Amino acid sequence: MRPERVVGTPMRRVDAEEKAAGAARFTGDLVVSGMLHGRVLRSPLPSARIARIDGSAAERLAGVRAVLTGRDLVDMDPYYGHAIKDRPVIAIDRVRFAGEPVAAVAADDPATADDALAAIRVEYEDLPAAATLEAALSSGAPRLHDGPLRPGLFHGLGELRREDGNICYHYHFSRGDLDAAFAGADLTVEGEYTFPAVYQYAMEPHTVIAQWGADGLTVWACCQHPYLVRAELADLFRLPLSSVRVIVPYIGGGFGSKSYTKMEPLTAALARKAGRPVRIANRVDEAMVTTRRHNMKCWMRTAATRTGEVVARQCRAWLDTGAYADNGPRVAATAGDAAPGPYRWKAAGVDAWAVYTNTPPAGSYRAFGAAHLCWIGESQIDALARKTGLDPLEFRRRNLLRPGEEVRPGGKPLDADLIGDVTKVAAAVGWGEHKPPMVGRGLSVGLLAAGANPVSTAAIRLQADGTAVVLVGTSEMGQGSRTVFTQIAADELAVSPARIRVMGTDTQFTPYDRSTGASRSTTIAGKAVQRAAADVRDQLLEIAAGAWGLPVGSLDVRAGAVWHETESLSYEDLIKRHFGMVGGELIGHGEVRPERGTGSYAEGPVFWEVCVGGAEVEVDPETGRVHVRRLASVADVGKAINPVLVEAQDEGACLQGVGNALFEEMRFEDGQLINGTLLDYRIPSMADLPDEFRSIIVENADGPGPYGAKGIGEGAQAGVPGAIVNALGDLGIDARELPLTPERLWRLMRGSR
Amino acid sequence: MRPERVVGTPMRRVDAEEKAAGAARFTGDLVVSGMLHGRVLRSPLPSARIARIDGSAAERLAGVRAVLTGRDLVDMDPYYGHAIKDRPVIAIDRVRFAGEPVAAVAADDPATADDALAAIRVEYEDLPAAATLEAALSSGAPRLHDGPLRPGLFHGLGELRREDGNICYHYHFSRGDLDAAFAGADLTVEGEYTFPAVYQYAMEPHTVIAQWGADGLTVWACCQHPYLVRAELADLFRLPLSSVRVIVPYIGGGFGSKSYTKMEPLTAALARKAGRPVRIANRVDEAMVTTRRHNMKCWMRTAATRTGEVVARQCRAWLDTGAYADNGPRVAATAGDAAPGPYRWKAAGVDAWAVYTNTPPAGSYRAFGAAHLCWIGESQIDALARKTGLDPLEFRRRNLLRPGEEVRPGGKPLDADLIGDVTKVAAAVGWGEHKPPMVGRGLSVGLLAAGANPVSTAAIRLQADGTAVVLVGTSEMGQGSRTVFTQIAADELAVSPARIRVMGTDTQFTPYDRSTGASRSTTIAGKAVQRAAADVRDQLLEIAAGAWGLPVGSLDVRAGAVWHETESLSYEDLIKRHFGMVGGELIGHGEVRPERGTGSYAEGPVFWEVCVGGAEVEVDPETGRVHVRRLASVADVGKAINPVLVEAQDEGACLQGVGNALFEEMRFEDGQLINGTLLDYRIPSMADLPDEFRSIIVENADGPGPYGAKGIGEGAQAGVPGAIVNALGDLGIDARELPLTPERLWRLMRGSR
Repeated sequence: MRPERVVGTPMRRVDAEEKAAGAARFTGDLVVSGMLHGRVLRSPLPSARIARIDGSAAERLAGVRAVLTGRDLVDMDPYYGHAIKDRPVIAIDRVRFAGEPVAAVAADDPATADDALAAIRVEYEDLPAAATLEAALSSGAPRLHDGPLRPGLFHGLGELRREDGNICYHYHFSRGDLDAAFAGADLTVEGEYTFPAVYQYAMEPHTVIAQWGADGLTVWACCQHPYLVRAELADLFRLPLSSVRVIVPYIGGGFGSKSYTKMEPLTAALARKAGRPVRIANRVDEAMVTTRRHNMKCWMRTAATRTGEVVARQCRAWLDTGAYADNGPRVAATAGDAAPGPYRWKAAGVDAWAVYTNTPPAGSYRAFGAAHLCWIGESQIDALARKTGLDPLEFRRRNLLRPGEEVRPGGKPLDADLIGDVTKVAAAVGWGEHKPPMVGRGLSVGLLAAGANPVSTAAIRLQADGTAVVLVGTSEMGQGSRTVFTQIAADELAVSPARIRVMGTDTQFTPYDRSTGASRSTTIAGKAVQRAAADVRDQLLEIAAGAWGLPVGSLDVRAGAVWHETESLSYEDLIKRHFGMVGGELIGHGEVRPERGTGSYAEGPVFWEVCVGGAEVEVDPETGRVHVRRLASVADVGKAINPVLVEAQDEGACLQGVGNALFEEMRFEDGQLINGTLLDYRIPSMADLPDEFRSIIVENADGPGPYGAKGIGEGAQAGVPGAIVNALGDLGIDARELPLTPERLWRLMRGSR
Repeated sequence: MRPERVVGTPMRRVDAEEKAAGAARFTGDLVVSGMLHGRVLRSPLPSARIARIDGSAAERLAGVRAVLTGRDLVDMDPYYGHAIKDRPVIAIDRVRFAGEPVAAVAADDPATADDALAAIRVEYEDLPAAATLEAALSSGAPRLHDGPLRPGLFHGLGELRREDGNICYHYHFSRGDLDAAFAGADLTVEGEYTFPAVYQYAMEPHTVIAQWGADGLTVWACCQHPYLVRAELADLFRLPLSSVRVIVPYIGGGFGSKSYTKMEPLTAALARKAGRPVRIANRVDEAMVTTRRHNMKCWMRTAATRTGEVVARQCRAWLDTGAYADNGPRVAATAGDAAPGPYRWKAAGVDAWAVYTNTPPAGSYRAFGAAHLCWIGESQIDALARKTGLDPLEFRRRNLLRPGEEVRPGGKPLDADLIGDVTKVAAAVGWGEHKPPMVGRGLSVGLLAAGANPVSTAAIRLQADGTAVVLVGTSEMGQGSRTVFTQIAADELAVSPARIRVMGTDTQFTPYDRSTGASRSTTIAGKAVQRAAADVRDQLLEIAAGAWGLPVGSLDVRAGAVWHETESLSYEDLIKRHFGMVGGELIGHGEVRPERGTGSYAEGPVFWEVCVGGAEVEVDPETGRVHVRRLASVADVGKAINPVLVEAQDEGACLQGVGNALFEEMRFEDGQLINGTLLDYRIPSMADLPDEFRSIIVENADGPGPYGAKGIGEGAQAGVPGAIVNALGDLGIDARELPLTPERLWRLMRGSR
């Protein structure tokens, strides 16, 4: 009936032309009338008391409109943080990391603002710093935060338990009798592991414009979670939600770096003081101290029988969340959650701690938690396979959970064919084929609890000419959400995608969407779009049924019209008929909400995202350089609404996984980031592409999203490092510390760390 | 159950503070990134061929980005006009009025744009002009438009019949046997009358910003009918409706001058050529040649029995619509419609013509049609009353239609108590009291077909904190619509009005509203808001019913919560319960559409707006100056949602009625406007306020709007002139030409016109 379907086709991105032509507008392209330029003075020290701060000389400079310091926040409770309210809008009396904002200036132009920063006098009194996990966890370590932890608006992790010292959050779970299981097992492997701090590196650093008016606060921001940012701003400035407006232009990449609230409160506070709109645009080095991925220390042991059945796993992980919690508690919980891996354990026990240190705050980054832990668990699986003499693929096939099996008590059963998935990547990297010298192959399998809270709403407005406007709160950050929603709406309404226009987010107009992240947009926001379109379709069918005097069941939609056998009424005709004129519109709504409880990771998840990777690598014994010959991952997407976008997402995640495994590390010395430029911080380039690169799309229609879709785009980042590490293991190299830079590998091969 | 009702109270305007503080933003306050300043070169001649136009010198000026002439429109069908597509976006080869745009310039600043205008060379060849109604209707008159008339997107007046010469539209109706009725009547009065061209004079002249992007055309405009402007722009530039975005900031007064499409196409065409956003802001003198009220010549006769029953009326009216139709056809039809007046005729016949002349186009202005005709009909009613010896109030009481009586065959029956209304204004101006010398009293009663097409939609988004955003497409132009909608939404949702925020119009987000005008917004858009709120309320009740396991019927809403007896759940709690988290929102929709057909004036109207005025005037026999001692009007509003706003609307209409009756006239000589400044064009000032000024609010809950409301704000402008004319008639002065300036009255009293 609808031969013109576009769902499932590689339709060109709706924003392709605009972006290719440089016409797409990002936050940094916007000019708001009367807008000032904001710059931020940052602490040079990782831990200090602010003895004195004097902005008066800066204030006297011509063209300087405001200088903001912690003293300007006395009329408000200036602490925010979606999980834990531990972060001041701007430093108050104390700094906790090198790079923390201590003052901000709004001036007529950026150069004047820079001059003003130089004119601000700050006297610091050094305080002892705990700039590493070890230092922060040592007895007698200086404490970053005193007093009880205050839950943020979206902590969502049950009651916060204050532990001693610098523990920000502790995640624990235990199943089965752990001691007995390990005692009864034939084989055990055990080790300590290190995961580096890495930077999400989006092309566009954080940029925010804030404007106050009689109607409240308006913020233009490159944020992934505009509705949560709105809530935090409303909470900070004591405004109703309906008086805070967050507008999201195109975003130049997010990867988690723009999730939750970042530069928005500071920009809003500065604009409030200046009485004028203000833009703050981070430089790259400033973005690198605004958020990052948690570095981690981990201890893990895994046991199996000598016949190749997994028995038990125990894990303890300490994640460095920096000076403020940001998303640390959730990252720790998700890491803990990912620690066991998708196997049929008799017992498992996990503890994961988020730990405060005097370093820049760590938050979300693609596949957080899973990226931290999967490679470790999977390297122990390989080690056990080797001990049993079983092929690692065969070992996994025996022990992996099957669709419908319980992953976690009471949670979503497994909705993916992991054995099929891993078999596919194995084949793609030449599993079982002849291996040249210094060539190794590895596999990695994991699961990522995805979807966040499944709360999305959407609206579709079918206009009098039969074109439709889709209102949905997903941030378009390059992932192609507007294209995918266009495809869904076009098919549901049976019109050409040229008739669909998906708008950007403006919280004052766009229906609520929980967030853009957690691989949730196609699955959850897309479902809301699908339902909104169905609502419009139902209205069209009703109008046509009324016009013809026929039951709705005898009608269908096709090519922009309602049909009864060979008779049709176009949507334009139906709207005109309904409203008695050329005008009016039909509005449909779609709503997605949890089927029970909060539907969050903890109770859900909405779906399991697979993290399945395979790699064939070659190591240069002279230099320690790893060359990736073949790389494969599975995008187990349920249904690929747009296969090219699925592949692009998966490939991006793979390449960031390669970066995480081989290149990337933010290096701190005494709390100072010493490689805060892209000259020193190494990300993968085109030259690092594998010789063969396969993204295998699996479509079993087993997801909860539209047409059985489920999210992808994160899993590969957690699957690839384990595959590379296991490929090195295949060569006898036991890697327990990422990234595997040539130097580190060279030392490892020579037994010197 | 809801003691906190705000409907019916004089709540302070929601935009009061913002506007008083100068913080409210109008289109002229906006700066769009990269915006250029547009200026318009206007024809100095009323009728000419453009022999040559050379913008090359202007284009070469530094800072000039584009020069637009008719030649730039060759890629499009450049004619628009919602009723008749007769107007080019910019003059093509020919100009038809002095002031017509012949070229437009976009430059970096306004001064450069002005310099560029001076550098454009235009050679005109004079053509014969028809600059008056008489000239345009004379045999052998030059024709302004050749060929068939093309209907515009919203002509809505049946088939366009092309008549000879310069007739743009002809309205006709006839009831009963006119000749027989007049022949059988005892008394007949007959006369010729003249109504002047007047300017709507809004504080803010027309201002438009246009911007083109990959996503289409965005226009910020002070327009009353954004959805119709969108449709015309989409039609002109061949875009889908969903690719044209019209954003309406606050408007500094409309009164009809900003209804339909004015400066938007020209600004959009200039921005298209410049490849940059462009703002055009009319000066006052430019606004005065952009639109105006129709001047008119009229012949009317009315007959009655000697015992004081009205018998028949016949009317012929010629309305000067200027060089382009604009809303001329509708104004002519409405004038014709208003000609009989609300009396029990045996026969009535009307012809009204809209006539093209070489003068600036005439369009809508408050109470159009009724303002043209009521005073004429009512002066003949007074003349007949005098002939029968009956008091004019008594004569009216005998003959006025009563509620439920047919006004027009098949149309809406009378929904107002005209006899009660006129009795009230009579009392207010001292009817029957002793009259000092040179003091006269007059009454006037009429009806105005109001509501336009009753098509409005609205949405309400109840946020997680229990505050709500109202999306409705009415333009806030000073009338207080946002305040009234706030009151309606607050009461329907049983929350404080502080929890409601009504957004401005952005056609890309705000649901369709036909237009802001025709006294329709409270009645029709307000009804849509009420229904949207009820939809949200129903959802809240359903959620609570589910939570408690109780039937919806046992619950009620009060003070931001759903109640069952003494138990309650706040809206915040209910939303959290529904979505399983602090987030999500409930969205309600409201739709108003005609109960049958188009619901337009012709078939409807939606309601009848009364035009009832009373005046007591004193004439200075030496100077001819009229002093208004007492003025009263009726705001028969059904239900006053906000009584202070009702009074303000009614008082404004009264004062504009005084202006129309006594002061205002655009004067043309050979097609040139000779009083195009506010120094020469006299509008009422505070010094012209009547000594006593009463706006009588009548609330019979007999309207189709929320709580029985119906629109007001126009009627008084049509009621006041007749009351003043009849007060002069009470002094024996037979005024047949407006405005009654001192000079004109002085001449009239001396028998010399």
